[in-house]
Amino acid sequence: MATLHYHPFCPHSRFVRLILAELSLEPDMVEEKPWERRMPLLEINPAGNLPLLVDNSGLAVPGSSVIAEYLDETHGESLGDRRFLPRDVEQRVEVRRLLDWFHVKFHAEVSDYLATEKIYKRFTPAELGGGPPDMGAIRAARTNVRYHLKYIGYLIATRNWLAGQHLTYADLAAAAHLSIVDYLGDVPWDEDETAKHWYARIKSRPSFRALLADRVLGMPPWEHYDNLDF
Amino acid sequence: MATLHYHPFCPHSRFVRLILAELSLEPDMVEEKPWERRMPLLEINPAGNLPLLVDNSGLAVPGSSVIAEYLDETHGESLGDRRFLPRDVEQRVEVRRLLDWFHVKFHAEVSDYLATEKIYKRFTPAELGGGPPDMGAIRAARTNVRYHLKYIGYLIATRNWLAGQHLTYADLAAAAHLSIVDYLGDVPWDEDETAKHWYARIKSRPSFRALLADRVLGMPPWEHYDNLDF
Repeated sequence: MATLHYHPFCPHSRFVRLILAELSLEPDMVEEKPWERRMPLLEINPAGNLPLLVDNSGLAVPGSSVIAEYLDETHGESLGDRRFLPRDVEQRVEVRRLLDWFHVKFHAEVSDYLATEKIYKRFTPAELGGGPPDMGAIRAARTNVRYHLKYIGYLIATRNWLAGQHLTYADLAAAAHLSIVDYLGDVPWDEDETAKHWYARIKSRPSFRALLADRVLGMPPWEHYDNLDF
Repeated sequence: MATLHYHPFCPHSRFVRLILAELSLEPDMVEEKPWERRMPLLEINPAGNLPLLVDNSGLAVPGSSVIAEYLDETHGESLGDRRFLPRDVEQRVEVRRLLDWFHVKFHAEVSDYLATEKIYKRFTPAELGGGPPDMGAIRAARTNVRYHLKYIGYLIATRNWLAGQHLTYADLAAAAHLSIVDYLGDVPWDEDETAKHWYARIKSRPSFRALLADRVLGMPPWEHYDNLDF
């Protein structure tokens, strides 16, 4: 049986949960607290990053990009036209470019700030960096999310999905990161109707259900978080 | 003709230059100043990160990971056993795990601090963040590099190259990042003879020559930087 080590509000974990659900794979789920740097986890994955997938044969596959490539190589072919990393070289460049965009740029400018300041710091002991949120970081994230939303709207204005005519890893990554920001009520959806409709489409997929059921203890989601027709 | 947009002391650019040289590809080289955020570059690559490869057909491939995957998909097969991203699934996971290790973790903990504080800030106008180096960041990088060197020694103690029996992208990435730190004289080579011998092996490859010829204006390299028998 495969196992996924994850945190419910880690955007990289959410991306991999979406892929697994789209592939109808249901690994055992082990919730980790990233700030604890648990030793058994570090023995399997010395870098300590989440998520970590341990496959049926015991092979440890750490990190969202490595897992996404691994799942494409082991399951992609069987998906045919639905493949999330399409066969065409140019398409693969576009999907991977957007994966970098959301996993690195959006993460650094938006989702990491918000997840850290509003969620992680709430549960992290003070000696490990927990405490009240840094409002400057939150304001920066709220400013930055606006141009990312515009960029999504710009792409979707000429394409069916973010990287082209089919749903790809790019959509799953973008939606995974946005879903954290959306839980916190920090996406200014009214500023871009095109981006909003794209998100409503992806949010209504069955693969999204588990994410919409996640709750931060003592911090309910923004009222439309799990509303498919928001 | 293909073109590579790069900066001589950007570790991600160095990684791609090593791959291209190993593949005997010689694109036109366009030096960029990352802090300038040049508009024509941003039009081709909105994220603005380096390196950026524009291939013979005009396809823009941005970022070291995307370029490495692209070059594997377009040139890897022809390399046979010398392929830098081996065919075997388990091997690919190991190579990509180590790529993440050096491009993300080593970069965040060591090479980004040193390149930014000692090199970039020297040439960046004050209004864009230039100025004297932050000694705290440099001290942190110098402390962090020690366990990374140990980790390389630990891997090489049981393997011929970082990810296994053959030279892979993992070696090229690790050496690209280390080469920046080595230029600055900040690698404590005496602390790990195994790691030192691995670096001497990779440094003596013809693909490394162009990197060893790079100079920062007004800042000569550490005396053994381009000495193959250091």
